[in-house]
Amino acid sequence: MKTDFHFSKEIERAFKNDPPGQWMSPLPAGCLRLSSGYPAPSLVPSDEIKLAVARLLDEERDLPLHYIGSPRVPQLKRFLQDRMAHRDVEVTSNGLLVTSGACQAIDLIARILLDDEAVVAVESPTYMEALEIFRNYTEHYITIPVDENGLQTEVLAEMLAVRKEQGLPTPRLLYTIPTYQNPTGTTLSLERRQHVMDLAEQYDFLILEDDAYGELGFEERPRLLKAMDNQNRVIYVGSLSKVVAPGMRIGWVVADKRLIDPLSWFKKDLDHPFDQATMASFLEEIDFDEHLNHLTTTYESKCAMMLSALEEFLPPTVSWFVPKGGYFIWIKIPDVDTSQMLQEAFDAGVAFVPGKYFFLDQQEGLEYLRLSFSYASEEEIVKGVELLGQVVGMHVVPATENIE
Amino acid sequence: MKTDFHFSKEIERAFKNDPPGQWMSPLPAGCLRLSSGYPAPSLVPSDEIKLAVARLLDEERDLPLHYIGSPRVPQLKRFLQDRMAHRDVEVTSNGLLVTSGACQAIDLIARILLDDEAVVAVESPTYMEALEIFRNYTEHYITIPVDENGLQTEVLAEMLAVRKEQGLPTPRLLYTIPTYQNPTGTTLSLERRQHVMDLAEQYDFLILEDDAYGELGFEERPRLLKAMDNQNRVIYVGSLSKVVAPGMRIGWVVADKRLIDPLSWFKKDLDHPFDQATMASFLEEIDFDEHLNHLTTTYESKCAMMLSALEEFLPPTVSWFVPKGGYFIWIKIPDVDTSQMLQEAFDAGVAFVPGKYFFLDQQEGLEYLRLSFSYASEEEIVKGVELLGQVVGMHVVPATENIE
Repeated sequence: MKTDFHFSKEIERAFKNDPPGQWMSPLPAGCLRLSSGYPAPSLVPSDEIKLAVARLLDEERDLPLHYIGSPRVPQLKRFLQDRMAHRDVEVTSNGLLVTSGACQAIDLIARILLDDEAVVAVESPTYMEALEIFRNYTEHYITIPVDENGLQTEVLAEMLAVRKEQGLPTPRLLYTIPTYQNPTGTTLSLERRQHVMDLAEQYDFLILEDDAYGELGFEERPRLLKAMDNQNRVIYVGSLSKVVAPGMRIGWVVADKRLIDPLSWFKKDLDHPFDQATMASFLEEIDFDEHLNHLTTTYESKCAMMLSALEEFLPPTVSWFVPKGGYFIWIKIPDVDTSQMLQEAFDAGVAFVPGKYFFLDQQEGLEYLRLSFSYASEEEIVKGVELLGQVVGMHVVPATENIE
Repeated sequence: MKTDFHFSKEIERAFKNDPPGQWMSPLPAGCLRLSSGYPAPSLVPSDEIKLAVARLLDEERDLPLHYIGSPRVPQLKRFLQDRMAHRDVEVTSNGLLVTSGACQAIDLIARILLDDEAVVAVESPTYMEALEIFRNYTEHYITIPVDENGLQTEVLAEMLAVRKEQGLPTPRLLYTIPTYQNPTGTTLSLERRQHVMDLAEQYDFLILEDDAYGELGFEERPRLLKAMDNQNRVIYVGSLSKVVAPGMRIGWVVADKRLIDPLSWFKKDLDHPFDQATMASFLEEIDFDEHLNHLTTTYESKCAMMLSALEEFLPPTVSWFVPKGGYFIWIKIPDVDTSQMLQEAFDAGVAFVPGKYFFLDQQEGLEYLRLSFSYASEEEIVKGVELLGQVVGMHVVPATENIE
């Protein structure tokens, strides 16, 4: 029996990390799901997708079931180009690559740009799947804290200046979620957007703009970094997971053609035409802006419900950012290790994601947790926050009674 | 304007190769498609898939449209485990990974096993997409010729002995399509199957068994290498592309759990649940063995039609292997560069794939071409071969009239 495998050098390096998915605890039955970044069940258009498939296959027969040939595959691409134009980004067909969701896009980008010498700048905290992906490629990071106005560009500027002065390598890539960030829900201010673009030019790095939540603003949506990019420094990643359905796996990349070409070389799922054609068939029957309005109205109301429940049920030492869009509220519970609290929360019947998973150095995230208002119903949100408040109350001792 | 990108070291190496897809010429309108490894349009179950989606979404609503949660995703895995058992391979749930088709599977396997020091043994000729994938990882190959009984294991044995004697590295991986090979249509004999397993043990390499066509035998199907594997040396790759529909992107890997785990780390399309659940819903309503019987009866008849047309319309110097299953017939036209003949064939109204694309050293493949009997109708097959015969006739000068 063979016991020892000869893995590639790159994989041996990746093995030093924890296996991916540590943040994803299996939920006990009946537990209120304030943990997951899923769309609301009522907003997932399953009836419309059923009709979209029926129309697709009635009209095209076997075409979308082959490797290539469905006219709706290029049609999906045109829809995405139109959405980008709607957000002030003009892109030709060969500057856009459809991927299996944003995750495949981020992995492909990491794959072509990163190696064991690359330095990556990331927000702290940031999307845990992106951290998992980057760590497969390199061990070198700069972490930039996030406040209520997003990535602290002044801190980034200082770090870059110091590195340059000391002759240390500057980052090859900055990964940022500037709009309705995961996990903090914060949005990068316009001034900082301009600042980060200037820094990219000054220090010669690329920016991966992850815009998975960017269409889910409660008010006006901020200008994309990609729309401010006249130097071809921004690699934009979009997704229909949060606005249509994650299970369809439709994401995309907009970048310089000289990046899109190699990305497509390494995308070995061969364009998953059935998903793409189904999505195109779905999109041609709906008014997308109306669809988005319906989503944002619903999520804004759920977010407001969660915020008022937090005010009502959480101790006064607990704080959070107020999001202007997206799915998440980021909560700080001083002097409490939230990962130690998770089992109690499960026992009480509510789930969250411990903050530590969103940090490269997990010690920095112990006092935080992420709640999602996207999936649970308004009733479940209120009940879940009430249960969370009870669990937190057992850990947070009012300052005046602190006998330690 | 940024003009220069800093790519990863691995990608800089891959850039030395031609971009992928060179073998895939766009077909002129009306051209008879004897080139493509597509299933026959009439055998792609578009009506059944339409019903499968309707049943899936009526019963499960939003579940298969989220990241996880559809009970049909594990159900698909159980179906694949059952198919493996049917072919004498017992596999537990954590020894099987569902992928986006065989291509993603091959890429993931290459990714975890290969680096720039790895030697890969490949059949010559072999599947061009696999060559494209491997070349992204390493430049070091051993090529083993294929005859009517598949991979010539005696040649492999000799090469391995010589390399060992000379202190050269032996291969880390052998990539083989032992059953109804692409492109040659040949099948590895039972004796050679045992021989290659013995060589793997003796020289300590892994075998990637690509079985994309393995269920499409006209008579009894040969024993899988994976079924003879008591040393955990075989990584089996299966696919539903050729027996259901390529556009659904369902492939899978069966291997030692210590390989499956890292493979799943790097599979960043997050399990494409809508495709997987749709496939499970389709499979639960059909008798799969009956379905396969219908396919193989149809393809056997189309193959026979192509063989008799070849006898009728091709010059006597042209030769081919007679396949016992699969999609392809591999044809040798002595002293003709088939890639030079492609445009003429297009002009005449018939498409094939020039043989050179199936070889690492394309010069070795000039006299060959691949025909597919899977996609075209029987009438189109006869007409297409007749047109091909006319084009070939202009290049092949009868020996007695050869004035050179």
